[in-house]
Amino acid sequence: MNYYGSIDIGGTKVRMGLITADGTIAFHKMILTPVEKPWGEILTYINKSFETMLREAMVPYTHVYGIGIGCPGTFDLKREVISFAPNLKWRNIPIKSHCESLFPVPIWFENDTNLSTLGVAHFGEGRGINNIIGMFIGTGIGGGIIIDKKLYVGSSGSAGEIGHIIIQEHGPRCSCGSRGCLEAVASTTAIYKRIRRMYARLGKTSPLYTHFASSKNRTYAIAQAYNSGEPAAVKVVDSACYSIGTTLVNLIHILAPDMIVLGGGLYELIGTAIIEKAASIIRKTAMPGTCEQVKIIGTALGENAPLLGGAALVKMNLFTV
Amino acid sequence: MNYYGSIDIGGTKVRMGLITADGTIAFHKMILTPVEKPWGEILTYINKSFETMLREAMVPYTHVYGIGIGCPGTFDLKREVISFAPNLKWRNIPIKSHCESLFPVPIWFENDTNLSTLGVAHFGEGRGINNIIGMFIGTGIGGGIIIDKKLYVGSSGSAGEIGHIIIQEHGPRCSCGSRGCLEAVASTTAIYKRIRRMYARLGKTSPLYTHFASSKNRTYAIAQAYNSGEPAAVKVVDSACYSIGTTLVNLIHILAPDMIVLGGGLYELIGTAIIEKAASIIRKTAMPGTCEQVKIIGTALGENAPLLGGAALVKMNLFTV
Repeated sequence: MNYYGSIDIGGTKVRMGLITADGTIAFHKMILTPVEKPWGEILTYINKSFETMLREAMVPYTHVYGIGIGCPGTFDLKREVISFAPNLKWRNIPIKSHCESLFPVPIWFENDTNLSTLGVAHFGEGRGINNIIGMFIGTGIGGGIIIDKKLYVGSSGSAGEIGHIIIQEHGPRCSCGSRGCLEAVASTTAIYKRIRRMYARLGKTSPLYTHFASSKNRTYAIAQAYNSGEPAAVKVVDSACYSIGTTLVNLIHILAPDMIVLGGGLYELIGTAIIEKAASIIRKTAMPGTCEQVKIIGTALGENAPLLGGAALVKMNLFTV
Repeated sequence: MNYYGSIDIGGTKVRMGLITADGTIAFHKMILTPVEKPWGEILTYINKSFETMLREAMVPYTHVYGIGIGCPGTFDLKREVISFAPNLKWRNIPIKSHCESLFPVPIWFENDTNLSTLGVAHFGEGRGINNIIGMFIGTGIGGGIIIDKKLYVGSSGSAGEIGHIIIQEHGPRCSCGSRGCLEAVASTTAIYKRIRRMYARLGKTSPLYTHFASSKNRTYAIAQAYNSGEPAAVKVVDSACYSIGTTLVNLIHILAPDMIVLGGGLYELIGTAIIEKAASIIRKTAMPGTCEQVKIIGTALGENAPLLGGAALVKMNLFTV
C-alpha cells in the first residue's frame, strides 16, 4: 500500500503521519519541537523521527508518494523559503532545498492553517464544497481560503492571513506590528491577557488572579473561567466572539463562501459558544442576500486537520491538473 | 463590423454604448434615469434609447453580439433577479426575463462595480494581470474581485462587497444597517456629512457652513474644501483615506492580489491624495511579505469602466470557456 506523508511543525510539537488515499491516518508520531536548537538541527531531528516512524510502520520510502509539510509562518510564493515563522524564530530559511537533501521523496510546503483548511476541504466537513474559509483560533489566529475546491494563496502566496484583518482601527497593538487585528482581540493570548488584567485590578493576591495567572494551560484556564460563568471572563470571551463574528461578516461580504469552518485550541474547548455568538452577529450585521446560505460549522478533525491537509497537498500536486 | 452592447444603469443617469472587440467605445449615449417611474417603464425607456442609439449608429441588432447590463445592486446568483438596488428603490425585480422580452439579443447582468473592475481588468490598466481588486469610491463604495483573470462572485453571487468591510466595530451606522463599514466613514456621503457637521458647529449662518451646505455637487464641494487646505475638510478626508488604507490592508491580507485599482467620483477629483495616503498606511501596517509586490493604481477609464466591463461580460460569456 502507498501513503501520503505529512508533517505538521509547530512551536511546541511536531506531528507526522502516513495517510491513505481515502484520508485514514494509518500511522502517526508526535515529538516535541527542540526549539532551542538551530533550524538545521531541528529539521534533521524531524527527518530522523519520520524515518523512525517509517521503520515502526514497516513502510519503505518507496511506498511514500511524497510529504506535505506545514509550518506556522509565511512562505515565498514557490514555498521554497520560509520568510517568517515567529513561533520558531525562523527568518528566510531555505527550507525546501534543505529538506530535499534530507528526504528522498518529493516535498511540498504550506502555511499550517492553510493546510488545516485544505484538510477539512479535502477529507473533512468541506468535502465536495466549492468555496470554504477556515479560521483557527489558538495562541494566534490563522486561516485559509478554498476557491473552487483548490487552496487559494494569492499572487504573493500570502493570502488567507485572516487573523490580521483589522476590525478595530487604532485598536490594541497586534504581534504583527499593526493595531486592532482580530488576533489582537480574540486569540487565546489576547483573551488571557485581558482577563488577567481585569483580575489584577482585584489585587495581585486575590485568589482569582493568583489561580488564573499561575495556570499552565492558558486556553484551559480561559475555558474554565468562562464555563463557570465568572463575569469578567464571560465579558472578555463574549467580546472576542463578537469580533470573530465581525470578521466573518467581512469575509462573507468579500468572498461569499459556501462554508466557514472553525477550529483551533480555543474552538476545541468552547466551540459551541463561539459558533452561536458569531452566527448571531452575522445574522444581525451581514447584508441581506449575502449570509443566508453560508454554513458555519466547526471541524471535528482537531489536530489531524493539518496532517490530512499535508496529505491532500501531496495528492493534489501529484495527481490533479 | 460586430459590437458588444453595454448599458450602465445608475441612480441618476444611464450610459450605453457599442464596443468593438479591442475595447473601443464606437458609439455611446447618455440619458437621465427616470427614477420616479415604475421599473418596467424605466426598462422600456432604456430599451427605446438603446434602439435610438443603434439607429443613429446605423448598426442593426444582427451586428450586436449581446448586451452586458450593470446595475447598482445585488443580484441573485444566476443574475436573473435584482434582489436589492437601493438607489433605484428596486427590490426583487425579475430583470432578466423582462429585458429578454425587450431586447432581441442575449443579455447578461452584473453589479455595476463588479463590471467596472472587469472593465479595468479586461480593457484597462489590469489587462493581462491575474488577481485584481477594484475599489470605487463615490456616494457609496463598491468593489469587485478578479481571480485568475475572471470575475469572482462567490457562492451566493454577492462577493466583492468591499464597501461593507467593517473596520470600526461599533463605529458609525452604515446604510446597510451595520456599523463601522468603510462606506460609513469614507464614501462622499459620509465625508460630506461629517464636514458639514463640523461647519455647523461654527453656526448655521457661518459662510463656511452656508456655502458647503448649499453645494449642489457634494463630491466637488469636498474636493474644493480639501484642495484649499481648509483644516476640517483636510482632517475628515485624511481620516477617510486612513480607513481606505486599513481596508486595503485587510484585502491584501485576505486575497494577496497583484493589483488594487481605485476609481469612482471621489477618486476622479482627489485620487492622488487618496492613493498616496492609503499606500502609506499599507506600508506601515501590512505584514512583511504581503504588500511589497502589490501595485496600487487608479484607473483612467472613469465612467467608461462599467461600459467596458459590460462588453467584457458579453465577450467572456460568448467566447471563452
